[in-house]
Amino acid sequence: MKIEGRNSVYEALRSDEVTVNSLMCEKGLQNSITALARQKGVKITYVDKSVLDKASLEGKHQGYVADVTDFNYCEIEDILAQNSTPFIIILDGLSDPHNFGSIIRACECAGVDGIIIGKNRQVAVNDTVVRTSAGAVAHVKIARVTNVNNAIKQLQEKGVWVYALDMDGQEITTVNLTGSVAIVVGSEGDGISQYTKKCCDGVVSLKLKGKVNSLNASVACGIAVYEVVRQRG
Amino acid sequence: MKIEGRNSVYEALRSDEVTVNSLMCEKGLQNSITALARQKGVKITYVDKSVLDKASLEGKHQGYVADVTDFNYCEIEDILAQNSTPFIIILDGLSDPHNFGSIIRACECAGVDGIIIGKNRQVAVNDTVVRTSAGAVAHVKIARVTNVNNAIKQLQEKGVWVYALDMDGQEITTVNLTGSVAIVVGSEGDGISQYTKKCCDGVVSLKLKGKVNSLNASVACGIAVYEVVRQRG
Repeated sequence: MKIEGRNSVYEALRSDEVTVNSLMCEKGLQNSITALARQKGVKITYVDKSVLDKASLEGKHQGYVADVTDFNYCEIEDILAQNSTPFIIILDGLSDPHNFGSIIRACECAGVDGIIIGKNRQVAVNDTVVRTSAGAVAHVKIARVTNVNNAIKQLQEKGVWVYALDMDGQEITTVNLTGSVAIVVGSEGDGISQYTKKCCDGVVSLKLKGKVNSLNASVACGIAVYEVVRQRG
Repeated sequence: MKIEGRNSVYEALRSDEVTVNSLMCEKGLQNSITALARQKGVKITYVDKSVLDKASLEGKHQGYVADVTDFNYCEIEDILAQNSTPFIIILDGLSDPHNFGSIIRACECAGVDGIIIGKNRQVAVNDTVVRTSAGAVAHVKIARVTNVNNAIKQLQEKGVWVYALDMDGQEITTVNLTGSVAIVVGSEGDGISQYTKKCCDGVVSLKLKGKVNSLNASVACGIAVYEVVRQRG
């Protein structure tokens, strides 16, 4: 997989979970990124900007295009092993890679232990997700499961309380989220599927005071994540 | 200005602040949108999908393209008149229309009294902003000012406490935000300009627990807005 841009390449180099195979840099660049790449034994090729422009998928290489091993998903057990009272985000059918990238950023900032995504109707970690995550993807554990509902049951058996984030639940600030907790965020258009919602232990909602009341999925997720951070103090 | 898509057109029709001049609909559509357009005396033209595809700017018309009057900015006084203890968001140099649209959505949901934007280095309300806002733009007062710093002073003279949202401030959950308050959100790349930050009464921050710690501007703004909502109860 190719990644590009200053942040994405720097974070991939820093990460233990992504392997950078090779790095193409614009001629003349000598900085902390090239130093780190050398230190990690990554092969660096210095090329003209026009070569990078061609190699770039999004035209936002900022002088750096790297070849990395495809994203290394973890298992649910790896996420649970991170923390005795884990905090997990589950994505149920998110389709926009920009939203996924923004959610990974928010989860990284909030110290979330991991993200679980389904294989169906859910965008995987691709180049756009990596870029939109501003490099955060290299520092967050992400598990990809065949069946989100089974994953929810697996978490519940380990003592994790699983909440759906939806419109018709209890106001999130009034629910105790200080224990082992997972929050399910649904798709941009349709929200959480009815059956998945039934699998959850409860439904939490954000207070809505407007007429349209349509929050972007990544903003809604960010607000919920930071409510958990606030409660955990 | 043209707007397109089910939500954007419906909300424009419902709004008192946007005037829908005409509506192009796909042939055969008869629903709450066409009914509302008729009720409002808007001229409706039924056309083939191919005509809408041509008229559409983003290819996401969903059967509706409307011609509306350009966005009607308000004055700061109009925002202050909304509420005796106003809650205002100030945007200082936001460049991404998707972020702006998401922020408008979050502000609408949270019942923010208004948004103030600068004229320099700041994306205006354009078609992409309208669409990304999912129609929320029709229900939020937005003032556009020549100088953000003067606007801050004007608010302070009216008793509003103005906070910059940045990395090096007091943790937002520990700051009392229940009175008249405005929060300044900076640009995606550079944050808030130093001089603007100096004009503020204080700096509030989100707790950051990760290694990358880079929140998307609209997610950060959404979290801050909902912290104010939580405190106001």
